[in-house]
Order: sequence, then C-alpha cells, then structure tokens
Amino acid sequence: MAKLYHVPLSPFCRKVRLSLAEKKIECELIEERYWEKGSDFMRRNPAGKVPVLRIDNKIMSESAAICEWLEEKYPEPPLMPRSADARYEVRRIVSWFDDKFHHEVTSKLLYERVNKKIMKAGFPDSGNVKSGAKAIKYHIDYMAWLLDHRRWLAGDVMTLADFAAAAHLSSLDYISDVDWNRSQTVKDWYAKIKSRPAFRNILADQVPGFTPPPQYADLDF
Amino acid sequence: MAKLYHVPLSPFCRKVRLSLAEKKIECELIEERYWEKGSDFMRRNPAGKVPVLRIDNKIMSESAAICEWLEEKYPEPPLMPRSADARYEVRRIVSWFDDKFHHEVTSKLLYERVNKKIMKAGFPDSGNVKSGAKAIKYHIDYMAWLLDHRRWLAGDVMTLADFAAAAHLSSLDYISDVDWNRSQTVKDWYAKIKSRPAFRNILADQVPGFTPPPQYADLDF
Repeated sequence: MAKLYHVPLSPFCRKVRLSLAEKKIECELIEERYWEKGSDFMRRNPAGKVPVLRIDNKIMSESAAICEWLEEKYPEPPLMPRSADARYEVRRIVSWFDDKFHHEVTSKLLYERVNKKIMKAGFPDSGNVKSGAKAIKYHIDYMAWLLDHRRWLAGDVMTLADFAAAAHLSSLDYISDVDWNRSQTVKDWYAKIKSRPAFRNILADQVPGFTPPPQYADLDF
Repeated sequence: MAKLYHVPLSPFCRKVRLSLAEKKIECELIEERYWEKGSDFMRRNPAGKVPVLRIDNKIMSESAAICEWLEEKYPEPPLMPRSADARYEVRRIVSWFDDKFHHEVTSKLLYERVNKKIMKAGFPDSGNVKSGAKAIKYHIDYMAWLLDHRRWLAGDVMTLADFAAAAHLSSLDYISDVDWNRSQTVKDWYAKIKSRPAFRNILADQVPGFTPPPQYADLDF
C-alpha cells in the first residue's frame, strides 16, 4: 500500500491527500515530525520537507510534481482539464496558493501559531500574525471574484486548483483563521468541496494542543 | 509577436526566456520595473510579479505554469520527457530550484546584493549573504551527485530542469557568486547549456550599476 509521510496541518500534504483520496488510492498516513532530532527523514528526502509519497516502488517529494504524476498515472477521476489553456489556469492557481498565498497568509498565521509551538521554536510574531490576518481578506476577495465568473476556481469543473486552495483554507480553518462571513460565494464553494468523501479524512485530523472550532468538521457550517 | 515583461536577472524570467528561445518563439522583451510608482503592471498581473507573458491573445503569469503551457502548445523541441516517471523528475528538480534553491541561495545573494540596490530598499544583510554563500556549496554538490548519474539534471536529455537550474546559476554568475571550481562536473554541464543559441540573449544582459565578471559571457570560462 502507498505511504504518505506528512504533517496533519501542512497544506502541501493536504493537497496530496485530497488527490489520493479523490482518485481512491489507498494510502497509509505516517506523521513525520521531521524537525525532531533522530528523525531519519532527511535520508528519505534530501529536500527535508513533507509530503513524501512512497508508491509503486518510488519515493517522491514536492507536492506539485507528485500531483502531476498522480494525474498522469491515475487519470480517473481527472483533476486536470484537457485543453492547454484550461490546464494553464489550474497550474496558475495552484502556484498562486502554494506560493503567494502560502507566503502572505499560511506562513504568517499557521506557522506562527502552530508550527512554532509544535517545533518549540518560540512565540508567534505578532507583526506576522497581523499581516497574515490582513492579507487573507484580499485573497478571499480574489477567490470570490474568480467564483463569480466560474463554478470552480479554475473553470467549470473541480480541479487541483480547488484542492490547493481548500488545503490552505482548511488548515487555517482548524485554527479559526478564516472569516467565512466575508464572502457567501467562497463559503458556498468551500461547503461543496468539504462535503466530498475525499475531505473526510482531513476533517478528522487532530493536532494535540490545538482544538479546532466546531465549524471545522461541520458540513453545514 | 509575443511580449515578455521581465527583469533581466530574475531566474523565473530567465527560465521562460530559455524555453521561448529553445522553441524559437520570437518574443519582445520589456523590462518591467514593477516596484516603481506609477507602474501599471499590477493591472496586468494581480500577483504583482514577473514574468508575465503576452502570447496568442493570452496574458500569463507564474513561470512554472507558463513553461508547462509552452510545452503543451509548442511541443517542439520537447523540454519534457514522455514517461510519467521522467516527467515527475523534471518537475521535482524545477521545484527544487524555484523553491528550495531560490529560498536558500538566490533570495539570499541576488536579492540582497542587486534587488535591494535597484529597488532602493536598503543595504545587503550580511547574515543573509553569508548563509546564501554557504548554502550554494551544498546545492552544487547535489547537482554534481545528480550529474554523476546522468547526462543532464533530470535524466539523459536536456529538459526544463536544466533551464531552471541554469537560470538561477546564470543570475548568480552575473554577480560572481558561483564558485565554478567546486565541481568540474557542474562546470561542464553549465558550459554545455551556456553554449546553446537559446542562452545568447541571457549572456548579453546588462544591468546598470553591476558589471558581470569576464567569465559571465565567456563560453570557455
């Protein structure tokens, strides 16, 4: 069976978990506390980060490359459209979340509040938290603007772009950092994606020391 | 004709320039000083960064998504192999450079030494410069290890992975931050890629205030 070395609230791991689950690929989840001494994780992945997927006798890192590989090897159900233009838009939005959103929001909120505590790396920097809390508003507005023109983030079908965005937002929702009242459109989109069977496993995550708010796992939030 | 809004030493722009040139797509280069007031660049790209490519009546951002699109729309000559496993390896290495190498090396050397001066954003942080100068050694060693097993970085043919790596290294070479004596294997690989016609335009770049060392444009460096 496939094995995914992961950290529960990592959005990059969650994106891969969503792809695996949507494609009904059975996978054992192994929590990797790679920052602890004695972890032999660095030997498994020279990049020293999660996710790492062991599948079909391969060991793979880099979530974007993993998701593209899954799409090519396990094409059903498709998480990428067929035309080059539509595929471009999916990849653009995946990069938007994994690069820009991650830099401006996730690293400023989740990493400050959760990772620092878990990794015993000090206290949250309030300047970062403030800047992340401000930036997420603009990102939600951008999503609302996209979703006013389309059913899903990258077009009229659900794709990897929706999983990338939902991976970040779900991790932030776990620590109550998403204001779902800001946009009914974005809330409706998240309700649709949250109710998919692929999402169940993510809604069941528990991180010791952090209790998610009641709406986190509630499909009618 | 296609237009690329770019910054000369940006490795993300250089990767796209190399892909365009290798595929013989004619493209006008427009330098985009997006950090200057009055730039209407933000209207062209909500992500607010370069490169931005205007081609076939589309406006595109995000270098990884652009390169995949170019590969799908202009497949000749191919910069991606055919098999899913080989394509995974290309994408893994592209991410390695554009994420890990960028974070540990390029942002610590090029951004400190050049971008800060051009953008009038203060003086180089010597701690960052030191850390980048140390990290590049390990990355060159990793490249040497890969190239001991393969002709090119991701396998036996030249791919986007080589362009991603060469884009970062060429920008750093412009400011004399690459120690080519560290690995003959890596130097040989760079000499091969540097001598391609697609590289000419990059070797002709001039950034006011920064004079490249003599080896920068020398094919027999």
